[in-house]
Amino acid sequence: MDATVTGFEVHDIRFPTSEQLDGSDAMNPDPDYSAAYLVLQTSDGSEGHGFCFTIGRGNEVVAAAIEALRPYVVGRPVPRTAADLAAVHLAVTHDSQLRWLGPEKGVMHMAAGAVINAAWDLAARRAGMPVWRFLASMTPEELVSLVDFRYLSDALTPDEALAVLRAAAPGRALRTERLIEDGYPAYTSTPGWLGYDDAKLVRLAEHAVADGFTQIKLKVGVDMEEDVRRMRLARKAVGPDVRIAVDANQRWDVGAAVRWMAALAPYDPYWIEEPTSPDDVLGHAAVRAGQPVRVATGEHVANRVVFKQLLQARAVDFVQIDAARVAGVNENLAILLLAAKFQVPVCPHAGGVGLCELVQHLAMFDYVAVSGSREDRVIEYVDHLHEHFTDPAVVVAGRYRAPSAPGFSARMRPESIAAHSYPDGPVWQTSKGSGTR
Amino acid sequence: MDATVTGFEVHDIRFPTSEQLDGSDAMNPDPDYSAAYLVLQTSDGSEGHGFCFTIGRGNEVVAAAIEALRPYVVGRPVPRTAADLAAVHLAVTHDSQLRWLGPEKGVMHMAAGAVINAAWDLAARRAGMPVWRFLASMTPEELVSLVDFRYLSDALTPDEALAVLRAAAPGRALRTERLIEDGYPAYTSTPGWLGYDDAKLVRLAEHAVADGFTQIKLKVGVDMEEDVRRMRLARKAVGPDVRIAVDANQRWDVGAAVRWMAALAPYDPYWIEEPTSPDDVLGHAAVRAGQPVRVATGEHVANRVVFKQLLQARAVDFVQIDAARVAGVNENLAILLLAAKFQVPVCPHAGGVGLCELVQHLAMFDYVAVSGSREDRVIEYVDHLHEHFTDPAVVVAGRYRAPSAPGFSARMRPESIAAHSYPDGPVWQTSKGSGTR
Repeated sequence: MDATVTGFEVHDIRFPTSEQLDGSDAMNPDPDYSAAYLVLQTSDGSEGHGFCFTIGRGNEVVAAAIEALRPYVVGRPVPRTAADLAAVHLAVTHDSQLRWLGPEKGVMHMAAGAVINAAWDLAARRAGMPVWRFLASMTPEELVSLVDFRYLSDALTPDEALAVLRAAAPGRALRTERLIEDGYPAYTSTPGWLGYDDAKLVRLAEHAVADGFTQIKLKVGVDMEEDVRRMRLARKAVGPDVRIAVDANQRWDVGAAVRWMAALAPYDPYWIEEPTSPDDVLGHAAVRAGQPVRVATGEHVANRVVFKQLLQARAVDFVQIDAARVAGVNENLAILLLAAKFQVPVCPHAGGVGLCELVQHLAMFDYVAVSGSREDRVIEYVDHLHEHFTDPAVVVAGRYRAPSAPGFSARMRPESIAAHSYPDGPVWQTSKGSGTR
Repeated sequence: MDATVTGFEVHDIRFPTSEQLDGSDAMNPDPDYSAAYLVLQTSDGSEGHGFCFTIGRGNEVVAAAIEALRPYVVGRPVPRTAADLAAVHLAVTHDSQLRWLGPEKGVMHMAAGAVINAAWDLAARRAGMPVWRFLASMTPEELVSLVDFRYLSDALTPDEALAVLRAAAPGRALRTERLIEDGYPAYTSTPGWLGYDDAKLVRLAEHAVADGFTQIKLKVGVDMEEDVRRMRLARKAVGPDVRIAVDANQRWDVGAAVRWMAALAPYDPYWIEEPTSPDDVLGHAAVRAGQPVRVATGEHVANRVVFKQLLQARAVDFVQIDAARVAGVNENLAILLLAAKFQVPVCPHAGGVGLCELVQHLAMFDYVAVSGSREDRVIEYVDHLHEHFTDPAVVVAGRYRAPSAPGFSARMRPESIAAHSYPDGPVWQTSKGSGTR
């Protein structure tokens, strides 16, 4: 008999990060980094882990949404193949009644992503491969079968997707070797949180360069003069050859974004990230047309339909996928294929809780089997909370090492889960975080 | 001392509508119409009611999201003025941690809408006015102060909004009289559910015309030949002068929508509603450009930013606001102002549970104080579940009568709440609905 999924444990896990102002930006002054966390268990003793990243309050709502997906997974055969993983994806995203709550956006869609990613963790573990390699072991036809092409066909057909994947297929083995040899470029956002003072900004920027990073990122968007001042300090600290990206976290309207970037332009920002609402395709196109700096967005883009339009409208220079906001590996594969078709580089969003761990697999798979390139591509890296994972992301000399452990690097240490469970874990008996509101 | 909000009761209410296939369409074969329902109570004994409409499974997730908003309302002064209602709106939509769960979309945003609408029900009741009249009693300046203009300024500035409202101000009294005299045009979707057989379709279409409706709507999108056949039957039943709108409920990609509408065009469909994903601004523009039928959408459009783009891209001929998906009255006011600026008529979505009751207030206020017109404008009407409300919408001879009872017509009968509470209410002891999955 085939093994079945028998367990579906949901945890509300929160870290009181607001106490150090790690993660503070123009829209998010005091986040408590959190995860609505799922453990799937099987009748033969294996596990799959997945999660949504949130910044505190409302994590329990995402946990409730994951819970609502229990009946679509428990009691079913353990997913092993591309066909199985396509079925899991459709089961949790195509239920008509749950779809009403989006469709394909917000809490319910994030929850679907956690379930799908847990299924991938499970399947890759059982295959004995890290997810990037498990994906790269699939044929172009299998990969295409994983994608929901609904609403995409005006921009990308299954045949076009197949052509992208077939073109990359001959180079897979060589690129896999290269990846294992020298990893994938990272950039660091550690220096640039708004809550850090000048001394800490300069010190961390200098450390980043010393550590081998060739790109750092600063948060901007609250006060233009202050941002110009901080940008000048950072530029002085890192010199002219290190890229400095800036990130407004959706703070601006179109006009403000254009004005602000004109003021920062003399210090050569590499990209402006999230200049405005993640829903505003036409707004991003206007920002891109209105000032000289490259435009990046994606961490809050709800689904493949919005990414499709950002590409169709030539609104972005970089596509910033997030591993845990859209419907998991399957929808991110759709987005990687769209980006490859439109020849726009993918530079994943990471940080948070476990996002570096997850998204490195997608970027590496993209290099090996989709875009075939690491040119102009970097994965974000933030150096916190990795110690809570059993297979933490490893960044050496400014580059992610290719994960070798089976699975999605998604597994949080049991003692971390116990300690940070909200509201009853021991950490929350002494920490207050940013409070209940 | 000012009265404060002291109670915040959340109910999971579900109706087993799947048993009759009421509400069946191309994407939603078996809905159990439901409401995540909120009752606010005050220290001096008044109440405000609000809700989200869902179609069954997942209603508990929306209820959990409403629950997460409790601390932003309870213990605060009872909202009475435009300034108070602007503050409620910002409190529940601008919390940085909850915003992460959207932003401004899906479950968390729907929940914000329920809370905001309950606050409006409460304030209008205390003012002794129906919401449409309460809104129309506010000055243009007060109305503008209710709107969150973030992300709108490239399409609509506060000054432009003020100009729209000032232009309509002199005619308010006359239009109020007219509205009370002869109501607001309705159209009916009752005949057209996909689950109904031909005889029921024809009988209900004929009844609709006999009842005074000048527009009906058919669900389409599963089978093109079948849709052509049903459209032909409906056209024959109602004659050439009654408008027949068709509604695909997001079933198509752009190409399919264009082909399908070419096939239906000989039977003169009035509009094609939700031809594709509600997120697909560029897709709607392509559908509008590719075939002869007018395009309508909005019931699943997540927020004002997407409506803005639908208008900027000239993607729609009709804006279909929904009373309970965006952030309540405040965000709908933003959308009414955008539509007025772009001179696109608003034809609200209704049906479901209580949506006719709510949205009539917004359309009537639009007529009195924003667009100043009922031309080319109709409110959807579906004749079911009204008996559960204490002030049900009244449609006579194909027109909504203007509500006169104070509040938002949002109050469900206590015995209906008790009977349909899920899963413990008596109705759910004997009904199964469409099941847990």
